[in-house]
Amino acid sequence: MKVTVSRRETFNAAHRLHNPIWDAEKNAQVFGLCNNPNYHGHNYVLVVKVSGEIDPDTGYVIDIKYLKDLIREFVTDRFDHRNLNLDIEEFKHLNPTAENIAVVIWNILKEKLDPKFDLKIELYETERNFVEYSGK
Amino acid sequence: MKVTVSRRETFNAAHRLHNPIWDAEKNAQVFGLCNNPNYHGHNYVLVVKVSGEIDPDTGYVIDIKYLKDLIREFVTDRFDHRNLNLDIEEFKHLNPTAENIAVVIWNILKEKLDPKFDLKIELYETERNFVEYSGK
Amino acid sequence: MKVTVSRRETFNAAHRLHNPIWDAEKNAQVFGLCNNPNYHGHNYVLVVKVSGEIDPDTGYVIDIKYLKDLIREFVTDRFDHRNLNLDIEEFKHLNPTAENIAVVIWNILKEKLDPKFDLKIELYETERNFVEYSGK
Amino acid sequence: MKVTVSRRETFNAAHRLHNPIWDAEKNAQVFGLCNNPNYHGHNYVLVVKVSGEIDPDTGYVIDIKYLKDLIREFVTDRFDHRNLNLDIEEFKHLNPTAENIAVVIWNILKEKLDPKFDLKIELYETERNFVEYSGK
Amino acid sequence: MKVTVSRRETFNAAHRLHNPIWDAEKNAQVFGLCNNPNYHGHNYVLVVKVSGEIDPDTGYVIDIKYLKDLIREFVTDRFDHRNLNLDIEEFKHLNPTAENIAVVIWNILKEKLDPKFDLKIELYETERNFVEYSGK
Amino acid sequence: MKVTVSRRETFNAAHRLHNPIWDAEKNAQVFGLCNNPNYHGHNYVLVVKVSGEIDPDTGYVIDIKYLKDLIREFVTDRFDHRNLNLDIEEFKHLNPTAENIAVVIWNILKEKLDPKFDLKIELYETERNFVEYSGK
Repeated sequence: MKVTVSRRETFNAAHRLHNPIWDAEKNAQVFGLCNNPNYHGHNYVLVVKVSGEIDPDTGYVIDIKYLKDLIREFVTDRFDHRNLNLDIEEFKHLNPTAENIAVVIWNILKEKLDPKFDLKIELYETERNFVEYSGK
Repeated sequence: MKVTVSRRETFNAAHRLHNPIWDAEKNAQVFGLCNNPNYHGHNYVLVVKVSGEIDPDTGYVIDIKYLKDLIREFVTDRFDHRNLNLDIEEFKHLNPTAENIAVVIWNILKEKLDPKFDLKIELYETERNFVEYSGK
Repeated sequence: MKVTVSRRETFNAAHRLHNPIWDAEKNAQVFGLCNNPNYHGHNYVLVVKVSGEIDPDTGYVIDIKYLKDLIREFVTDRFDHRNLNLDIEEFKHLNPTAENIAVVIWNILKEKLDPKFDLKIELYETERNFVEYSGK
Repeated sequence: MKVTVSRRETFNAAHRLHNPIWDAEKNAQVFGLCNNPNYHGHNYVLVVKVSGEIDPDTGYVIDIKYLKDLIREFVTDRFDHRNLNLDIEEFKHLNPTAENIAVVIWNILKEKLDPKFDLKIELYETERNFVEYSGK
Repeated sequence: MKVTVSRRETFNAAHRLHNPIWDAEKNAQVFGLCNNPNYHGHNYVLVVKVSGEIDPDTGYVIDIKYLKDLIREFVTDRFDHRNLNLDIEEFKHLNPTAENIAVVIWNILKEKLDPKFDLKIELYETERNFVEYSGK
Repeated sequence: MKVTVSRRETFNAAHRLHNPIWDAEKNAQVFGLCNNPNYHGHNYVLVVKVSGEIDPDTGYVIDIKYLKDLIREFVTDRFDHRNLNLDIEEFKHLNPTAENIAVVIWNILKEKLDPKFDLKIELYETERNFVEYSGK
């Protein structure tokens, strides 16, 4: 009897899409406006989905307050009001596309969570563009 | 060729999280503000997802009006403007966490639906906290 | 050059509509399901709107962090996860309709804010029912 | 390491549910208001979900601009501000239920996309009624 | 002490923008895709805003259930799943633009409401296009 | 008989709050995380509200397609995927707070619109923080 518990958090960050092995022309052609050297930004919406059995004593799969604190400490407090390319270690050598941000967040949280849980990340870059990753 | 049809309904209810085998201190520690003896409440958003084959005569998997009536008769008309702990039989001896409410609703609707359908329940307790259950 | 700055906050509370000078039958007739003696509840969405001149040094009408802290300290931390009828002083003798809650919140915040500001309260009881009050 | 990338688009169309092999009475009984011979309409919300590996050079599963252009050229520019029954070839002999529209869109886009990708369609007919199809 | 009470309702309708005193070319030029002779459609979202004094006995400006029933009986039950141009008397000789629909709804409801109330109509044709009218 | 027509558009930009006449310490104290020298960013939601009489020939206050094109040409195409501080002339010497951005957009559009119209700008910096300006 597996139930999935989800928590929605947000962070507001600047970023730029860029591949340093390509020249400026190729970067502009592939990434278009997202390659602006002065950066642009987003209100990212993050949904963290944790699946597991219900604990009969609490009626919880996971204490959502614990999950919220985990997300804030290890993800949103680190990423919020930051420049992903310049301020966040994980994107020093990794292009901060929505896909890569989702994988990075999955890796961060997977390590902090009890391995009995399944984990899935949804990340909304805008109202119209979003990605999902579940480690498979 | 399986299609999933979803219907979104809402109900507004009071509840309290509490485990009667624990003392007040332990309940306060585990459930925090949610343990308030005078109750608090939510606008619950319920999404009922039914999967099956498209009927070639109607183009429907299931008549959504029939599904809506089923949800209202057996779930939302019973739960809406109620105190889940005091007024709803299923929670007399079951802690009304989002997880347990989702399982209770799945059990109610599974029994009413043609067994050929798969059923999944999504339940939003707030904009930021929600759960899913598909009977597995 | 007046600009209005708005902050959206939420609180989840139980309540019951009831007029103690009426008998049970009259209360049931006027308030319907909202009169349930065991209470029901809502995720209230509160929008606080403050109007004033832009400070040329900061570019702010009001520091939104200060406004957020004010709302939390004096309104949402007091109302969240509470029973409005039983736990909140202001509703001991005042029916906690959306209209009255909005007026109560306006009165609380008006007194805390610099009188140079205009104040308006929007309060959403559900997605479909909401009220506004600006002290006039 | 599979990631799903989603794009949300909209189109506004008229339609009518009707089965030509049934008489008017049977159609009215099955489809109710949706059988109105003068049509009614919806703001359809379409979410196209494409799953695949992240390209290490771009950090993309698929260029979302390319996906957006594909959806617009082959789906929303064709369906938007149209009468699905009268103006769209695919519904000349197919009842334009949400289920059938989702299958039609899946078929259109599946053929245009690189076969390495998995494809899923979500189609919202209203805020409360929506369907999903992934070709299985 | 005036409070505004709002109720959100929806209706799904087909329509076409057309001025019968112009020829086809002029209509196509002015109304573009909205002039499609086969109609298109929308999920209209209607917000009805009623302003007045709080009744000290009920704590209500107006009983929102009464307001909901009024909107449904005189507006949404009449307009929902209809073709505005063909099925609705008021648009037989009036172009059903969002602006005109809002004015028509205001006129319908103004006459049904106690004249002591101020009335404002908001009408969303899509997520991105909407209008407001308050009879002034 | 004045009707207000609104159009919702979006742009995604980086920015930083900073007053060059203050030292780093004072800036950090006043603007907190928003002062990050590497910038952060937002998905700005812009609602442009134009009020005027309905033209009896078209049923429009203003052609919303014309309004959309105006907003895109003079505002969102200029601001989208940009760094407000570095890339946008108007913020070279003006702190890009939500308040100041709203005033700048109002000034840009006021000059392009027929003076017979009233204009109001709503700007959402996040889901929870937003401002309004109507030139008064």
